[in-house]
Amino acid sequence: MEWLNNGINSPKGFKSAGIHCGVKRKRKDLSIIVSKSPCQYAGVYTKNLVKAAPVIWNMERLNKNDLIFGVVINSGNANACTGEKGYKDCVNMAIQFSDGLNELKYNTIIKKENVLVASTGVIGIPLKMNVISEGINTIVKTASSSKKSGLDAAEGIMTTDKFTKVKALKIKIKDKEVIIAGMSKGSGMIHPNMGTMLSFITTDANISSELLTEILKESVNDTYNMISVDGDTSTNDMVIVLANGESGSCEIIKNSEEYYVFKEAINKLNEELGKLIVKDGEGATKFIEVQVNEMNNVEEAKKMVHAVITSNLVKTAFFGEDANWGRILCALGYSGADFDPSKVDIKYVSASGEILLLDQGQPVKFDEDYALEILKQEEIKVIVNCNHGNSSAKGWGCDFSYDYVKINGDYRT
Amino acid sequence: MEWLNNGINSPKGFKSAGIHCGVKRKRKDLSIIVSKSPCQYAGVYTKNLVKAAPVIWNMERLNKNDLIFGVVINSGNANACTGEKGYKDCVNMAIQFSDGLNELKYNTIIKKENVLVASTGVIGIPLKMNVISEGINTIVKTASSSKKSGLDAAEGIMTTDKFTKVKALKIKIKDKEVIIAGMSKGSGMIHPNMGTMLSFITTDANISSELLTEILKESVNDTYNMISVDGDTSTNDMVIVLANGESGSCEIIKNSEEYYVFKEAINKLNEELGKLIVKDGEGATKFIEVQVNEMNNVEEAKKMVHAVITSNLVKTAFFGEDANWGRILCALGYSGADFDPSKVDIKYVSASGEILLLDQGQPVKFDEDYALEILKQEEIKVIVNCNHGNSSAKGWGCDFSYDYVKINGDYRT
Repeated sequence: MEWLNNGINSPKGFKSAGIHCGVKRKRKDLSIIVSKSPCQYAGVYTKNLVKAAPVIWNMERLNKNDLIFGVVINSGNANACTGEKGYKDCVNMAIQFSDGLNELKYNTIIKKENVLVASTGVIGIPLKMNVISEGINTIVKTASSSKKSGLDAAEGIMTTDKFTKVKALKIKIKDKEVIIAGMSKGSGMIHPNMGTMLSFITTDANISSELLTEILKESVNDTYNMISVDGDTSTNDMVIVLANGESGSCEIIKNSEEYYVFKEAINKLNEELGKLIVKDGEGATKFIEVQVNEMNNVEEAKKMVHAVITSNLVKTAFFGEDANWGRILCALGYSGADFDPSKVDIKYVSASGEILLLDQGQPVKFDEDYALEILKQEEIKVIVNCNHGNSSAKGWGCDFSYDYVKINGDYRT
Repeated sequence: MEWLNNGINSPKGFKSAGIHCGVKRKRKDLSIIVSKSPCQYAGVYTKNLVKAAPVIWNMERLNKNDLIFGVVINSGNANACTGEKGYKDCVNMAIQFSDGLNELKYNTIIKKENVLVASTGVIGIPLKMNVISEGINTIVKTASSSKKSGLDAAEGIMTTDKFTKVKALKIKIKDKEVIIAGMSKGSGMIHPNMGTMLSFITTDANISSELLTEILKESVNDTYNMISVDGDTSTNDMVIVLANGESGSCEIIKNSEEYYVFKEAINKLNEELGKLIVKDGEGATKFIEVQVNEMNNVEEAKKMVHAVITSNLVKTAFFGEDANWGRILCALGYSGADFDPSKVDIKYVSASGEILLLDQGQPVKFDEDYALEILKQEEIKVIVNCNHGNSSAKGWGCDFSYDYVKINGDYRT
């Protein structure tokens, strides 16, 4: 397994592009991913009852087992809470995108049902369909497999993100090289209840949609569902995997050796993309990893991780570089998990060292200056030992700063 | 039913006091409530698995049906997450308080089990028992039924609160006047999962501990459990009611006419105290009432209210005076309640007027200037009609400002 410095268009047979079409004032706001051959498709979508139009469209494609040739994504407007018009706009995006692809003369006629749509940005405002239509006509002609096109695509899906989020991995499936590449966007309305953002993964692996879906669902539970920026589950969250088989590798069959290699790679990729989303969390100045160890089962340990990474009081304490471990214990206490507070250890770890704050439920007298040194780092680990079993869970969050309030106090206007 | 401008010591037979003893630098930090005759006692406590020492002490008193003569409360330190020493300190507070009361020559010998203890403030740090012990010796001698002593007691329980929270009601139980008085403190770590703060209620009504407990539990569900400042459920939350029967009224029996009068009064008092806590929420600049109407059942409607009042994105939008109704619909969507988004209406109401933003799931074109006028007010109502039944629920929250981050970024140090 090897990390590559490549984009979403690096697996064989994939192209991408990203342009500015006019939804946003200046920054890129339209991206596409296309495959020359039909893709097996897996998707996991927001559990929010209020689903954006493109989420509904893509779920329909999944239910009907449609083969997929590409995804068109606009940023700047989520096309969520936009009523019937929103759904029509989404269908029109699919029509225009598939029409555009057909002009490029693929082997097959691509129907609107063979493409996916994603939107991200402000909710409750109709799409500017005129600029998007024109944009789609332009962008289909610019798709390429160049490094620049990969980067352009990653830029086109950003909203309040400060940096692009791209990761790619090379694995061996028997004798063949297989690439798995991903790109994501955050960075507010991020909360673990499924994907909680946009994430696109392409691969030239040969795998069925059913197995891909199974692997994706498992992976999402341990990766994207274990991150939180602000506790709000979006209307638009999705993780999409497209596999076109162009690597020429053998088909990946469940429980085979290749299956485990592929699954681990998907997991690694999702974990790294998830961490990038948190690192770029709105207003975030610190990246917090929370590990709960020695619990009696994983689900309980996950509840505890969630409570800590979503606690506003914990998050503001990290922003203030205050070793306020009591707020961590408090959050563990209301997590709903069943553990014995009198057996818990809490430790902070960073590049500056580590410090034990709670030892078997008893507060430890600690050196405040040393604690501050540890908390001054940008990446901090919180390690909780429950002395209550052998299961553990990990999750990732960020601190809560003035800037989060600033960004979200006037995001729409 | 008549509101009185009186304190916690206004029901017959109650006295109170509040002083500065030295836990905090300057502000009052120690309060007591005492009754000349034994009280029936009801209490509802935090559901956080991590319970502060005084919570454990008071729950033991409840389980053992102890009669209660008073409560001693310190602020500035929550005596939570303080290990075994914390519990011993709490028991010592009870011993010193009961000893002090005995010196005042009551008719009965008051044992430590006849008093309650409460603490609020920073967690994880041992109590300064020397200053608290001295303080208790002093304060027991100063308790009185004067207006000033009532106010002093309300001041002594404050932490980051900016104003005292006191309410009193007069009702008639048959021919007798009965007073119910309450005082509370907020103002961070406030989240609906039981009492979520300290609240003390005294009454000279004649009522059994069992019935008082039943009434209190029901009331807490509709009042304190429907407020949120920051989504964090504290380790120290408690609502305590003490009833000493000194009004000379007949005993309040379940389902009698008097029962309903008394119950309604307790509810009103709790609702008003809950609202005061939210209005004084850490960093709050706006008070938000959320009403969900026309749902198919109350529990579902409550879930929806909770999701809206706890959403950081909704809260920052109110801080920014941005009519971002999409975030409200998004929060309703992930609340877990089952409703039809395409039938929902959303309306904002304030002293400046009202504005419909979503009509049967369809966005309404609205005048942004008029919306801003409505949002400029300090008190705003969000009204959600689900067109999905006849049940409704109400809850109260506040906005999320820079100051919340500031206050909690350096609360401990």
